Amino acid sequence: MRLMKRAAGVMETEGVTVDMIHAREHDIAFGMDTDMTEHGIEVDDWPKLQARVDAADILVIGTPIWLGAKSSVATMVVERLYASSAETNDKGQYKYYGKTAGCVVTGNEDGVKACARDVLYAMAHIGYTIPPAPDCGWLGEIGPGPSYGDVVDGQNAPAGYDSEFTNKNTTIMAWNLMHTARLLRDAGGFPTPGNAGDWEQVTNAVDQRPPSG
Amino acid sequence: MRLMKRAAGVMETEGVTVDMIHAREHDIAFGMDTDMTEHGIEVDDWPKLQARVDAADILVIGTPIWLGAKSSVATMVVERLYASSAETNDKGQYKYYGKTAGCVVTGNEDGVKACARDVLYAMAHIGYTIPPAPDCGWLGEIGPGPSYGDVVDGQNAPAGYDSEFTNKNTTIMAWNLMHTARLLRDAGGFPTPGNAGDWEQVTNAVDQRPPSG
Amino acid sequence: MRLMKRAAGVMETEGVTVDMIHAREHDIAFGMDTDMTEHGIEVDDWPKLQARVDAADILVIGTPIWLGAKSSVATMVVERLYASSAETNDKGQYKYYGKTAGCVVTGNEDGVKACARDVLYAMAHIGYTIPPAPDCGWLGEIGPGPSYGDVVDGQNAPAGYDSEFTNKNTTIMAWNLMHTARLLRDAGGFPTPGNAGDWEQVTNAVDQRPPSG
Amino acid sequence: MRLMKRAAGVMETEGVTVDMIHAREHDIAFGMDTDMTEHGIEVDDWPKLQARVDAADILVIGTPIWLGAKSSVATMVVERLYASSAETNDKGQYKYYGKTAGCVVTGNEDGVKACARDVLYAMAHIGYTIPPAPDCGWLGEIGPGPSYGDVVDGQNAPAGYDSEFTNKNTTIMAWNLMHTARLLRDAGGFPTPGNAGDWEQVTNAVDQRPPSG
Repeated sequence: MRLMKRAAGVMETEGVTVDMIHAREHDIAFGMDTDMTEHGIEVDDWPKLQARVDAADILVIGTPIWLGAKSSVATMVVERLYASSAETNDKGQYKYYGKTAGCVVTGNEDGVKACARDVLYAMAHIGYTIPPAPDCGWLGEIGPGPSYGDVVDGQNAPAGYDSEFTNKNTTIMAWNLMHTARLLRDAGGFPTPGNAGDWEQVTNAVDQRPPSG
Repeated sequence: MRLMKRAAGVMETEGVTVDMIHAREHDIAFGMDTDMTEHGIEVDDWPKLQARVDAADILVIGTPIWLGAKSSVATMVVERLYASSAETNDKGQYKYYGKTAGCVVTGNEDGVKACARDVLYAMAHIGYTIPPAPDCGWLGEIGPGPSYGDVVDGQNAPAGYDSEFTNKNTTIMAWNLMHTARLLRDAGGFPTPGNAGDWEQVTNAVDQRPPSG
Repeated sequence: MRLMKRAAGVMETEGVTVDMIHAREHDIAFGMDTDMTEHGIEVDDWPKLQARVDAADILVIGTPIWLGAKSSVATMVVERLYASSAETNDKGQYKYYGKTAGCVVTGNEDGVKACARDVLYAMAHIGYTIPPAPDCGWLGEIGPGPSYGDVVDGQNAPAGYDSEFTNKNTTIMAWNLMHTARLLRDAGGFPTPGNAGDWEQVTNAVDQRPPSG
Repeated sequence: MRLMKRAAGVMETEGVTVDMIHAREHDIAFGMDTDMTEHGIEVDDWPKLQARVDAADILVIGTPIWLGAKSSVATMVVERLYASSAETNDKGQYKYYGKTAGCVVTGNEDGVKACARDVLYAMAHIGYTIPPAPDCGWLGEIGPGPSYGDVVDGQNAPAGYDSEFTNKNTTIMAWNLMHTARLLRDAGGFPTPGNAGDWEQVTNAVDQRPPSG
């Protein structure tokens, strides 16, 4: 959350409007549909959150690490994003095309890359464009220790705040997301053809030439 | 290799020049440097291959699956690509900025996503932009069975050639790579600032506002 | 669920008592503690489920696959199991020592190994012994298709029921779990020393010989 | 290598004979067979190394981390171990049954769990029994920094040598491997039935009761 705020700060400084959602403060239902109240679940805050995601050009997912893997809450968010990914935009592309995504990971030990890999692959799969250096994180030395931003006796700054590595990657991620969002907006979204329901036509010539050897 | 050729075919049909490297036919050294002959290794074909990678706007890495993971050969290629990733282009960005990457995976069982996740995360990490739907693959039903393109008695087409899912994803991947390469070329490469050695200056304002709460 | 039942059937045939929990039918809270009602959460069924897990010598976790990863529900179960893993048994070992774990994965596409890898690593980490061939799963050909056990027109058996590969692995997993549980029971649990709070003493001699070279 | 030696030291102190192989010092061929010289490769040191692995009750695989993944060399070793995994012992079980495996990971950043997960899953898959807490590693704070055992100015001990977390996990891993090897040796290897080519018979009763619901 604290590192998310740093990334958000980089973007806000450049005039980007940031809408931060803390998933745990909402009542998000498990399930692979857009609105689980249609499946007998009493409360599902997801549709309102999905609308906020849909309104944004940039999506950054944050997660802690448990046993080297992304959290169940982050996993649930990925699943719900996936559940509506077959919806199409007015070009006929899957709805997340033309947007860009990043990932922020903290924890007190090990697994930033493993978590980011999972999240970013899922985001690319459902239509987001992933910029260079799309993630950032902070970890102390292996083993138990302070979380990012914890105040530690005898230290000048909260844990990780002085990490040049983390600060550099956070800044680069934020800028590369802004650059990619701008590129995609200037292009009027992600270009067609090939990805808008027309794949059979555009590869017709190729289909006559089955690979061999 | 056969599915790589299908992806290549989609691009060639659109006028893209394709340069295909079969890593096993070359003598690539293990090691985390650009030229391992400078470290006492007798033969290292990598520098010549690196030049071919550097000449391309699009990089597609193909791998088989062993025990659910990418092959040692693909891993070695990723390591060698990584070894020169701190070199910079004339804008001061890491050298792979402005290029785009995809992944093709085949095997007879399970693990396309796990392998693609690994490869694509590594490529994003070193500077490639990852388009939507950046991978494709083919797998038969779980358990031993034919590889992609194997001729199977009593089947109309070699294994996987009729898979609408695989053909669709291969086409979409190929087009999305071409679109992304075009976007990046039209933009004169990946935009700066923030990623060209200037990260300390651009976040100066933010560094005064450490996150909290 | 259907493949879980097949694995359970193998064990029941041998006289093992099986207690099956369907996590979605319970109200399990997110959180990294043993009982989240102590943290202001109104309902948390986990403590009752934990007691059932603690009563068992064998734990098999089942999960579907979403985007190549284990489900959020399975992730939540792993997190809750982890939350009490620092508790010790009467030998002073972590509480899951002396038990054995396996994993069952189904889905309609790809990722059995990636999911099992995640789950089984977590189980080993918290103290379970992992037998040979500790997982089983079923997947149809890549792309959309029937789930395990779905009735498909024109097929003799529900999807996957005739898969020799899946049936073989399910049987082997079930037997290897039973063998391991028996071995551990006959040994009076997992042996000490070295793992029961005594690690500093038992390696004293080694600590005088720091590695080098 | 240095952390491998520490783990080895724990075992040697208890009278275990340790045979350490540094894969990079050998000329191991790529390929999925037991002896690649039968496939036109000139040199392949693997058969001699395989004999040393086969002679051991305990196998510990060590790897550095590159981009969050295990190294290509470790991947090649896993592939070669896999290549002969269908051979059977005199009970008719796959040849690695009755042995136990662990994993040691070092690097200067992030990914111990991700690498260990990959390696240990592969070892379980081919027949090794995985004990509780089967891995250990050392990482400094995120970002560039010393490797395990590097001498750092102003520090009392080489990097990581004073890490209680790493030393504890190394000791526990070493002991749990010894305990598991002893258990399996006392049992005369991993028990049958169910895993020795007899799976069809032992599940005959179950096969009459296809799961449903």
